[in-house]
Order: sequence, then structure tokens, then C-alpha cells
Amino acid sequence: MSNRKIVLARRPHGIPVLEDFRVEETPVPEPGPGEVVVRHTHLGLAPRARIQMSDEGAAASDRMELGGVIHCAIAGEVVASNNPAFVVGTKVASVLGGWQTYSVSDGAMLNPIDTSVAPPSVWMGNLGISGFTAWVGLREIGKPQPGETIVVSSAAGAVGLVASQIAALRGARVVGIAGGAEKCRYVETHFGADVCVDYHAPDFLEQLAAACPDGIDIYFDNVGGAVRDATWPLMNKFGRVIVCGQISQYVRKDLESGPDWYPLLTKSLLVQGLSFAAFLHLQDEFIAEAGAWTTSGKLVSL
Amino acid sequence: MSNRKIVLARRPHGIPVLEDFRVEETPVPEPGPGEVVVRHTHLGLAPRARIQMSDEGAAASDRMELGGVIHCAIAGEVVASNNPAFVVGTKVASVLGGWQTYSVSDGAMLNPIDTSVAPPSVWMGNLGISGFTAWVGLREIGKPQPGETIVVSSAAGAVGLVASQIAALRGARVVGIAGGAEKCRYVETHFGADVCVDYHAPDFLEQLAAACPDGIDIYFDNVGGAVRDATWPLMNKFGRVIVCGQISQYVRKDLESGPDWYPLLTKSLLVQGLSFAAFLHLQDEFIAEAGAWTTSGKLVSL
Repeated sequence: MSNRKIVLARRPHGIPVLEDFRVEETPVPEPGPGEVVVRHTHLGLAPRARIQMSDEGAAASDRMELGGVIHCAIAGEVVASNNPAFVVGTKVASVLGGWQTYSVSDGAMLNPIDTSVAPPSVWMGNLGISGFTAWVGLREIGKPQPGETIVVSSAAGAVGLVASQIAALRGARVVGIAGGAEKCRYVETHFGADVCVDYHAPDFLEQLAAACPDGIDIYFDNVGGAVRDATWPLMNKFGRVIVCGQISQYVRKDLESGPDWYPLLTKSLLVQGLSFAAFLHLQDEFIAEAGAWTTSGKLVSL
Repeated sequence: MSNRKIVLARRPHGIPVLEDFRVEETPVPEPGPGEVVVRHTHLGLAPRARIQMSDEGAAASDRMELGGVIHCAIAGEVVASNNPAFVVGTKVASVLGGWQTYSVSDGAMLNPIDTSVAPPSVWMGNLGISGFTAWVGLREIGKPQPGETIVVSSAAGAVGLVASQIAALRGARVVGIAGGAEKCRYVETHFGADVCVDYHAPDFLEQLAAACPDGIDIYFDNVGGAVRDATWPLMNKFGRVIVCGQISQYVRKDLESGPDWYPLLTKSLLVQGLSFAAFLHLQDEFIAEAGAWTTSGKLVSL
């Protein structure tokens, strides 16, 4: 028995091709002190991996190594353990693991899963990182309020389908964007979207505007590029854009000049327009602090 | 005695010219119930006014009316009062008021000022809206931590000079950007900047990079355009950009296609890159909520 791995043979240019990968066989690993060995039953394939394969967009800490196993989330079963938190037989999921049949873990990022709630594949999707990403993006950035309009691009994608459903559960009006009439119908029927617009449609811009008669309060951006550009003029005052994916940009070589949004994603940047009028409840605190600095000469004028 | 006003005669194109304005004389207003009349001793002139004169960039609610008085902050003295909170003789400052010698106020946005702390002009600057804007932008968006690097553009401007000083007081390393060697020296000497870079210098990009050997954690953007573009590649992971002004863009007629940053300011938008890894402390809360939705059939998979 061996550990079968798929490793990065070279960094892809554009769409990855077979020659960018290599299959290797190594012995099944043994657990060190405090470690467990997981036999993988499910492997993930996320768009994020394409960023990590590149030496351009990806942050150094996030980059896959040449010759290293391809990063991905996994589900599986503990088959050997020196860690009391994980007995042999425990079903687990992890964002680490990689495209291989076994992996070793010290328990970090390794979560037991309850297969009575959902099967392992769902623990890698809706209840895994893609679901968590949708949930946390709405909780920490989008903050949908009842009656607000949210647009979700790639609404039939792993993150988008959860974002759409959660936003609907929070009482927002959900406008999906997806490619093709069939996908759009699916999103409307199953994923909580009030309407889903086909970005392939020749009148996409008009359809999107018509679907958002009250403008856009939140845009959950999974794709970037032209679809993102279409939402930009429709944003309402105090709107929020969650930059979660820029799929349309991952294989581009000719990024336009100026502040492309790609670093927003790869560096998790925050860019926010400042309106003092939104913060007038803090004015007394300001006067107290800045007044004291002025009196003590720490804050000077021109 | 009359109320002398400067009103908007027509909306400027590009740099405002004299013909865009008109002087009018009207009777000094009388206070209605609950109102006060303020005699203006100081008028403000803020770049923000240029946005408000336009019918393009400005939000409808924020736009100056044709024939209406030019918006500006003021300082002055209460000369008539039907409002017990403001006795006649009270020194006040307000973000409202406008380019006129008298204004009527119901007390909203009207603040008594303590001229023993600072003279009225400082209450319109460092202790007024420009100071408040700098303070609140750092408190709510930038959140400088000791040792972080912050770049402040227009560092000799009304907001920038306060932002630089407050960031330095919070323990950040401050890199100013200003136009001309003399201004830069002034910023370094008086406003807390460790170094100030001249954006007119032919090697501005190299100087900026050299001034930020550890990258940029916070960019306090007062100008937009080419200066903003220069900071963008230097941003560190989890960096924050406070879009406070886009002076370089206010008179542009040829905004490039794609998501120009102008609406970030005029609509107070928030755009944030999402990294699930920054929020792993919330994973248990996610599993509890999304697991329950899954069990009850409210959250479905593909």
C-alpha cells in the first residue's frame, strides 16, 4: 500500500494542462508524536488552488511549492493516531490534506464531522470552507439587513450557492448571476434567489439593472472583471462589496494598469470610502481626545 | 444690515470660475421657534465642496442646488436665539452654514466651541470636520497599530496633517506624500511624519518604495489617481485603504472604464477582500448555525 500524490510539476500559464502535474507514489506516512494519519475519502478542487499554483498573484506564504502536493481540502477517516483528540475511525474534514490518498496532521485545521448531519461531501462544501467563506463574508463584511438587495455572482458556484441561501435566510432580496439559462433557473428554484441573471445574455446589463430596481446594497463578488464592472454603477450609498473570488482574472496575463482588484483578494485588503457624517455619534469622543492633544501641544495646526 | 451670500450660479465644468458664482443680498434672517441665528466670523473652503457643486459624482442628497448658497463649514456667534441650548453670545461652529454672513439653525450640527482650547479657525480645522474626519478614518477604518507603516497623501492638507499626527501618536511609522520639497520638510518637521516624499520628484515611485521598506499597512488616500496607484502594489496583507478624498479626480471628465474609485468616496462604499483564514475563531458558530439549517432543510447543496 502506498500514498499516491499529485504534485505540481511546473507553474501553469493560463489554464492548467496535464503537464503541469505529476503523479508520485510514496510509502504511507507514520504518525509522529501528537500526530494522526488520515486516509482521504474525498478531495476538493477549488478555484483558489489556481491562485496558489501561480508565483504571481499568490502571497508567498500561500503559494504551492514546485514538486509539492497540490493543496486542497479533504474529508476522510483517521487510520492511525498518536493524538488523544482523534481516535482511530474518527471521520474528519480539513482544509489541508492535498491531492493524495493519505496525509499526516497534528490536529490543526482538522475537524471531526458528524455524518448524521450531512455526508462528507457536504462537510467539504456547504459545511466546509466554501460554506464558511460565504457565511463569514456576509457576517463580517456584507452584513445583509432585511429588505436590502444583494447580488451574488457565480451564484451556482460552491460559495455563491451558500451566500445566496444565507442572504435570503437573513431577509435580503437576492439577485444571482450565473452563466446560462438552465443554471439561472436552478439558482432561482433551489438557492433562494428572487431572480438570477444570465451574464451570457446580450442584454445582461439591462437585465441586471432591471433586477435591482432599488440598486445594490451588497455585492458578493466571486468573479471580478466585467461582471463586477456591471454591478459597480448600481451600488447604493454605504454599499459593501465582498471580494471573495476573481475567477475571471486568475488566468489573465494582461491586467490593465491602475488599481486592479486582484490584490484585494490575494492580500485581503480593505478599501473603504469615508463619510464623517456616518460617525457623528463619535464626535464627543473626538473632541475630548483631540482637544486634550491640542491643549498639550501634541496636535498642531498649519 | 443684510445677509450677503455667494450662491451657485451654474455647475462648474473642470476648475470652477467666477461665472459659476453670484453674490446676493437678502435681509438678515429671523429665528423661528427653536431656532438660532448665527453671525459667521469664519467660512470654510473644503475640496469636498467641488464634489457637491457637480451633478455627476455627488449623491443627489449631497448636491448643492442651483441658486443655493455654497455649502461650507463656519464658525461664528449666536446673535438671536429661540433655542435654550444656545444663549446669545455663544461661540459656535457648524459643518452647515454656507458662504454667507448669517445663517439660521435649529441646533442640528451646531456645536458650542471653547475658545480657551483653540481659536475658531482651529475649531473649523483640527478640531472641526477635517480633524474629525482624520480621527474617525483612523479609528474606524485604518486602525493603526504600533509599528505599522501608514502612508498619508496630501499630508500637508487639512485632513492629512491631522491624520499624520494622530497616526504618529498611535505609534505608527508615518510616511507623508506632498507636493514640493518645502511642504515635505514642513510635514516632517511639524506633522509627525518620519519621512515625506515629494510626488513631483521624477523618482517618486522609487522614493516611496524606499520610504516603506516594510510595505504599507494603511494608506490614507486624500488624492486618488496616480499617487494612489503608486501605493497599491506596496500594500501589505490585511492592509487598509481609507478613501477620504480623490482630489486628483474631482475635475476629470474622462474617467477610465472599469471600477474607478470615485464612487468609493461619493457613496461611502466598503470593498474588502475575504480571507476565511482570518476568521477561524468563528468556525464553531458557523457549524452550529449552518448545521441546524442543513438538518432542517433550509440550506441545500448542489
